[in-house]
Amino acid sequence: MDASDGMQVVPPEGGAVRELLRVGGGVVELGAVDPRSTPGLPAVAGRGSARKAWARQQVELIGAGLGRQQEMLFAGAQAATGPQAPTSAPTSGGTELGRGRPQRVLLVLQAMDCGGKDGTIKRVAGAMNPLGLHIRSFGPPTRQERRHDFLWRIRREVPPPGYVGIFNRSHYEDVLIARVESLVPEATWRTRYDKINAFERELTDAGVRLVKVMLHISHAEQGERLLERLTDPTKYWKYNPSDLDSRARWDDYQAAYAEALSRCGTDAAPWHVVPADRKWYRDWAVAHLLRETFDELDLGYPPAGFDVAAERGRLCGD
Amino acid sequence: MDASDGMQVVPPEGGAVRELLRVGGGVVELGAVDPRSTPGLPAVAGRGSARKAWARQQVELIGAGLGRQQEMLFAGAQAATGPQAPTSAPTSGGTELGRGRPQRVLLVLQAMDCGGKDGTIKRVAGAMNPLGLHIRSFGPPTRQERRHDFLWRIRREVPPPGYVGIFNRSHYEDVLIARVESLVPEATWRTRYDKINAFERELTDAGVRLVKVMLHISHAEQGERLLERLTDPTKYWKYNPSDLDSRARWDDYQAAYAEALSRCGTDAAPWHVVPADRKWYRDWAVAHLLRETFDELDLGYPPAGFDVAAERGRLCGD
Repeated sequence: MDASDGMQVVPPEGGAVRELLRVGGGVVELGAVDPRSTPGLPAVAGRGSARKAWARQQVELIGAGLGRQQEMLFAGAQAATGPQAPTSAPTSGGTELGRGRPQRVLLVLQAMDCGGKDGTIKRVAGAMNPLGLHIRSFGPPTRQERRHDFLWRIRREVPPPGYVGIFNRSHYEDVLIARVESLVPEATWRTRYDKINAFERELTDAGVRLVKVMLHISHAEQGERLLERLTDPTKYWKYNPSDLDSRARWDDYQAAYAEALSRCGTDAAPWHVVPADRKWYRDWAVAHLLRETFDELDLGYPPAGFDVAAERGRLCGD
Repeated sequence: MDASDGMQVVPPEGGAVRELLRVGGGVVELGAVDPRSTPGLPAVAGRGSARKAWARQQVELIGAGLGRQQEMLFAGAQAATGPQAPTSAPTSGGTELGRGRPQRVLLVLQAMDCGGKDGTIKRVAGAMNPLGLHIRSFGPPTRQERRHDFLWRIRREVPPPGYVGIFNRSHYEDVLIARVESLVPEATWRTRYDKINAFERELTDAGVRLVKVMLHISHAEQGERLLERLTDPTKYWKYNPSDLDSRARWDDYQAAYAEALSRCGTDAAPWHVVPADRKWYRDWAVAHLLRETFDELDLGYPPAGFDVAAERGRLCGD
């Protein structure tokens, strides 16, 4: 029924996308990553515009697999904690982050304005069951949030076991915009890299698989996308005059990103820079990153936590 | 690229699904609604198994439209409250429910076990952008939740302006399971119908469009679906032995549903009973209910809240 019948997911060329796009553990030079490049895209994708159609079909195929793996992740958590346990709030007892075992995935998306965070969520998360997604957007902190430590609002939104979380912006804003726009003194944001690393260590210890992604666009591509938002009336709502103020500080933001990626790219929670001028490549790469993460979890459906034959007898005797 | 190219959404036959499936304003007789019936399904759907394929294609088509309308709903709220305003928590000032204007949609799904709530969410909400969805499941209340009024946890999860909320179970559990299983004294649950009506009135006054749906399955169909969960190891995780205890009280639950639908089916927030033994009809009907709700909102993209020419000048002068 759909055009991808008979097609298979083709692995990336040259190794896992997770390895190809990984940065950190040293100085990060964003200028050395071409936002129009397509690392790992296999030769079978073809050339020119053919690649786009190919990549879109691959994303659909990968998406179907992500949906199946997401269900297994969810099923495992339900079996571990009882049905309906993974509701909105983590319940009583122990740490805030749960009991250590049941796993979850958390995709952290960061980008300059127009970098494609929303589009990535729509394309990649759109293939999964919305019931098992925990998507949270972090805008400028509210008055209440500002009364707390910068990680307070983040901790409250860590996905429950079994869920796939997506952070549309994140705690990294607190070493990006907070730094570039001097929202807090330097002495404050300087301490945050270590705090972030400690927090993320806590998360990974509690069974959270972190997939941290910077969608990397060029200054020129940002300009074109902003112009589109100022030309197409159905896109006005996406535009904010303050976008141009941030754009004027492009180099400062790139430097802030480079330091965040360098200092917070750890073995437990590495950073990935996804070239994002080409939307089809961006989606393809993020889909593979999630796929590789799920594959590592080695998921399966949990065994019955009850006596199957006895329950069948109860059901059929009624 | 997909099989539905050239197809159009065919309107339901005999009037809006919203009218055809509406109950309330009098005694509700669930026994009079055949769970295998297909009210409103047009003759063009064909006969027998052809209808299923037709309905599935229609749901895809309707879904694409829902996605577009959802974006307009979201855009309108962003324009009204500033970009990134509709984050997780309603902010300071005024009522908890927002400023009255910006609209949102809230689908309330109730059903007996195996009634198809999860499947409906996957199929119907799956077509929308997950970024604009606010899906919440309400399981047994936690200890913290039990310390508050039964509406406390519900109020916290009302979707922010611009969002499409889905409640997977809801405050109606407090006059269903709470009544049938005597979780609270009769004197307590008896007062809740009026409280629910007052609460929902508050919601609709604040711009929330409520779409309340009971997925209506037969006792026999529930039996078959439970058996499937006890037969297919990839479905064990969906089964809970307590499901059979609820099944043993089928008539009590049906009576509790009938009273809830009768007493809380108001003009501002009517109840709809969707025959749900046939999954394809269920999805088709719920998709139309949402479509009709969106159509009433008469959505469009908001005008620019800034001087477009001036901003274009700023952008191109840089």
